[in-house]
Amino acid sequence: MSQTGEQGTLYVISAPSGAGKTSLVGEMIRADARLGVSVSHTTRPMRPGEQDGVNYHFISREEFEAMIGRDEFLEHADVFGNYYGTSQVWVEQTLARGRDVILEIDWQGATQVRRLMPHCVSVFIVPPSAAVLRERLVGRGTDAPEVVERRLREAAEECRHALEFDYLVVNDDFAEALSQLLSIVTCQRLRMDRQEVRHAGLLSSLMDGDGA
Amino acid sequence: MSQTGEQGTLYVISAPSGAGKTSLVGEMIRADARLGVSVSHTTRPMRPGEQDGVNYHFISREEFEAMIGRDEFLEHADVFGNYYGTSQVWVEQTLARGRDVILEIDWQGATQVRRLMPHCVSVFIVPPSAAVLRERLVGRGTDAPEVVERRLREAAEECRHALEFDYLVVNDDFAEALSQLLSIVTCQRLRMDRQEVRHAGLLSSLMDGDGA
Repeated sequence: MSQTGEQGTLYVISAPSGAGKTSLVGEMIRADARLGVSVSHTTRPMRPGEQDGVNYHFISREEFEAMIGRDEFLEHADVFGNYYGTSQVWVEQTLARGRDVILEIDWQGATQVRRLMPHCVSVFIVPPSAAVLRERLVGRGTDAPEVVERRLREAAEECRHALEFDYLVVNDDFAEALSQLLSIVTCQRLRMDRQEVRHAGLLSSLMDGDGA
Repeated sequence: MSQTGEQGTLYVISAPSGAGKTSLVGEMIRADARLGVSVSHTTRPMRPGEQDGVNYHFISREEFEAMIGRDEFLEHADVFGNYYGTSQVWVEQTLARGRDVILEIDWQGATQVRRLMPHCVSVFIVPPSAAVLRERLVGRGTDAPEVVERRLREAAEECRHALEFDYLVVNDDFAEALSQLLSIVTCQRLRMDRQEVRHAGLLSSLMDGDGA
């Protein structure tokens, strides 16, 4: 993997279900051409309207387990009998081209990614209150009560890992939360270790006093 | 010094003369009510239009040297026979009240501040090219050639310390540079160590699954 040139940043974004993460990440991508979301591999069946290679790479259990065997996943999880995983090679190649990659994963995936890619930047998104979270999770009205209760328990469990993340965004006002997420992205690009690569020529001529 | 409650962030902003630092910092302060600039102590004579306690705290050499003796300065420097310094007590009290403080100082001051307050966030601002820098420094037309030459040498010397800073902002387009500086400020406020204090109650209720 080439380390010359400008590297992208890997963002790990987690949240309890109902925090608005997916909508926020969708708007981040639309707002910033250099940001992209990782397309995960999964063994779950394709749903109507989904496209292979766009929403997910849909593969068989056998293929998935072979990839696990070859250590090809940055993180993977078995969620209710279906595998989900992020290809490490794809992420590293994308970062090496100077693009930023967002992984939308849960706290367990985030733990795996931090271990393998310690320079990742992790962000946890929360709703403005526990009551709002409950409203959002119950309010869908499409799931059985026991599913809703399980989702509430999982949301609390997810939140118990919030402090492991680098940044916290409270999604009270959507536009403000979006602006905060974009500020985090802008800020990482201004870090000296990135800028000294991007502006190497400028810094060198200023240090030499060229033009003087 | 109380460590409970929300602490402000200390920003150290340096730049070669002519990079637009003072105008940018002025706009930052106007854009964000929680940001303030440190008012330095100095022994240089007050200039027409300046106010004691607003532009600087104007004090005598004897008073200044007594403060040095009592280790009261976070950083101080002797610039062409005049002392300039930042009171550490004032900065710490302001941060403890949850306000952010900007120090506009040179690389030597920045080095001193980093040693005493290692959690400070330092930003270096550069012009878009060495030629533009020269234009800006020469273009004032108010100084003798040897003064201009000295300023150019000092600008190059200042830039040779750019890599010691946390962030680099290139002031090509003023509005964009301002927006980048404000993103750095927003981003620091979103850091988990700040947010877990600000949103302690929210995080606690989400972790407990309150409202569930």
